[in-house]
Amino acid sequence: MRTQVGIIGAGPAGLLLSRLLALQGIDSVVLENRSREYVEARIRAGILEQHTVDTLTAAGVGDRLHRQGLEHRGIHLQYPGTRHTLDFPELCGRTVWVYGQTEVTKDLIRAQLDGGPPLLFEVSDVHPEDVDGEAPRIRFTDADGVAQVLECDVVAGTDGFHGPSRAVVQQAGGRVWERTYPYAWLGILADAAPATDELIYAWHPEGFALYSMRSPSVSRLYLQVDPSERIEDWSDDRIWDSLDTRMALQGWSVNRGPVTEKSILPMRSFVSAPMRRGRLFLAGDAAHIVPPTGAKGLNLAVADVTLLAQALVRLLQEKETDLVDSYSDRALARVWRCTHFSWWMTSMLHRSGDDFDAELQLSQLRRVCSSEAAARELAENYTGLPLEI
Amino acid sequence: MRTQVGIIGAGPAGLLLSRLLALQGIDSVVLENRSREYVEARIRAGILEQHTVDTLTAAGVGDRLHRQGLEHRGIHLQYPGTRHTLDFPELCGRTVWVYGQTEVTKDLIRAQLDGGPPLLFEVSDVHPEDVDGEAPRIRFTDADGVAQVLECDVVAGTDGFHGPSRAVVQQAGGRVWERTYPYAWLGILADAAPATDELIYAWHPEGFALYSMRSPSVSRLYLQVDPSERIEDWSDDRIWDSLDTRMALQGWSVNRGPVTEKSILPMRSFVSAPMRRGRLFLAGDAAHIVPPTGAKGLNLAVADVTLLAQALVRLLQEKETDLVDSYSDRALARVWRCTHFSWWMTSMLHRSGDDFDAELQLSQLRRVCSSEAAARELAENYTGLPLEI
Repeated sequence: MRTQVGIIGAGPAGLLLSRLLALQGIDSVVLENRSREYVEARIRAGILEQHTVDTLTAAGVGDRLHRQGLEHRGIHLQYPGTRHTLDFPELCGRTVWVYGQTEVTKDLIRAQLDGGPPLLFEVSDVHPEDVDGEAPRIRFTDADGVAQVLECDVVAGTDGFHGPSRAVVQQAGGRVWERTYPYAWLGILADAAPATDELIYAWHPEGFALYSMRSPSVSRLYLQVDPSERIEDWSDDRIWDSLDTRMALQGWSVNRGPVTEKSILPMRSFVSAPMRRGRLFLAGDAAHIVPPTGAKGLNLAVADVTLLAQALVRLLQEKETDLVDSYSDRALARVWRCTHFSWWMTSMLHRSGDDFDAELQLSQLRRVCSSEAAARELAENYTGLPLEI
Repeated sequence: MRTQVGIIGAGPAGLLLSRLLALQGIDSVVLENRSREYVEARIRAGILEQHTVDTLTAAGVGDRLHRQGLEHRGIHLQYPGTRHTLDFPELCGRTVWVYGQTEVTKDLIRAQLDGGPPLLFEVSDVHPEDVDGEAPRIRFTDADGVAQVLECDVVAGTDGFHGPSRAVVQQAGGRVWERTYPYAWLGILADAAPATDELIYAWHPEGFALYSMRSPSVSRLYLQVDPSERIEDWSDDRIWDSLDTRMALQGWSVNRGPVTEKSILPMRSFVSAPMRRGRLFLAGDAAHIVPPTGAKGLNLAVADVTLLAQALVRLLQEKETDLVDSYSDRALARVWRCTHFSWWMTSMLHRSGDDFDAELQLSQLRRVCSSEAAARELAENYTGLPLEI
């Protein structure tokens, strides 16, 4: 087998890269070690920045997003006694969209299978090779158990945090930065109409809570819990009671409904640099992880592959190396900005540390809720900064 | 002896309070346990917010400040390879003034002794008493060793972190919050023309450095050091060499000159609440300490006594308790804002923690140097927020 760009991983990053390249006339093959059913069932983030919506739309996979997605014009920030609305269009002229990453993935898979480049599920033993030369290849075993070699001009490692690509880059030298937070998110999906127009980010002495939604009839809610908590110890009633406590506001209440999904998510910041070794390029979770507060993970992956697609088009069609040579630095500038913002949102909202830390958090929240400059700084980062910063 | 307001402590807070009250026809007596020479020699902060300058000017002690003080229209933020200027008038329409707290104190003492309310130096054994009733008193021993009682309507505790007033307030119930930072400032005064027009706040892998000035011929410079460092181990040459390293910029250098003062300052955040018990009111360092980064200490003290003077005039002349009743809450709102800002500036600029923390700091610095919203948020806080926030 031979293609121009071998793409490891059929998450949104790999699928979107394949599509952006195809639109520019560049061939690719996408290899995924899971099944289609598994990939389409993974519950992930649900907030799309404007640039992500624009990119998906331009790539021809925005129809269902525009029909079913919900445009959101702000967020509510809450601390006991106060719920304050940040109006994004007023603060920075941009909005965000609520549309699950799962749905983005489904749309991209459907488009890919409908005449797009090859997409192979359930492959195994995937290894990028000879990435320092001009003819790298990917060895893998296909779904039928047959050993295969995919010869390529370029390999894209969009294989997530646990994929094989990052290790290949780091073997030639590199650095990683990591932070594990002393708390986790207990997340539920519930068949209940959201009791709020916008997401509610709530600081509470007992811990952070987030009221989010996936559709007019599906709520997505989160509670800060200790990372050692076991999901079995959290009955639906206990979860709803905690949500009631942490989000309490006079004359308002959380809407309850059947819980359809329930899990505990660890929270971590992780950055790996560089994002390139020779003809192997990393994008998305393969190179960096952010905590979910601020919803940057998917958007950062889309930004990475947008930069990478431009760079690969320039390399493969115009034979110019300038954009691939600067790809890692340009992508990492944005990665660190979003890493800082995610850390900042996370640190402002989650209870941790001592009472002095709590007062600092409240002071920061009051400032964001009373100062145009502080509110705009949050809004600009939340709705997404320009692709190149 | 009897007066309307007994003031404990002749730092800028107590002296300015006495003066503001005198201008409204209210008598006071100021008690200070140190000598005039000692008080006038204490080296402290040197950055005055616009509201501090306005308050001192309106109080009739701004003549020398306006002659000898230096208006500063911004700061330089530096990290290796980059020195960026924040233009305060452009960002928020305000400026700051460089004029030593020592000079403010001298001006206030001179005005006080020139026909102002009594100011007694070198008193000892100062104890506020019966502050829960309407006739509190201050017991003390005067400079001649004679026991005295000062009967008052109100007692003002402007006696700094080590004074007796805070303990009297806390005895009736209260809370304190404290943070000790894992670093200290080594500060020098040098007879050297500043090599910079504006203060330089420099982040460096070896630690923070600050280039400040007191006059066109006197520089004030600081280095982040470990709190366990001994000043004897820092020769002048070692200090200048470290300043050269941390502030390095191509084509520019630190101006050296004779070092006239050298000391190591611990860094702490501290807040005590409430700031009132009955007829005893705290202001300035008696109630709160901020780390020096951002220069909020003196300005916060001036804000406290400005609020307190208004409240005491209303109490003593109009017999209305509304402003004294709300004094503590109104003062503490500003205290926490400045405590958060000082902590934020400190945490952004001082090396501590791991390499991930360093990258977060650099990411925040790059953002402040490239985003109008982030720069304005710093500028508004640095130049001083409105008196009531």
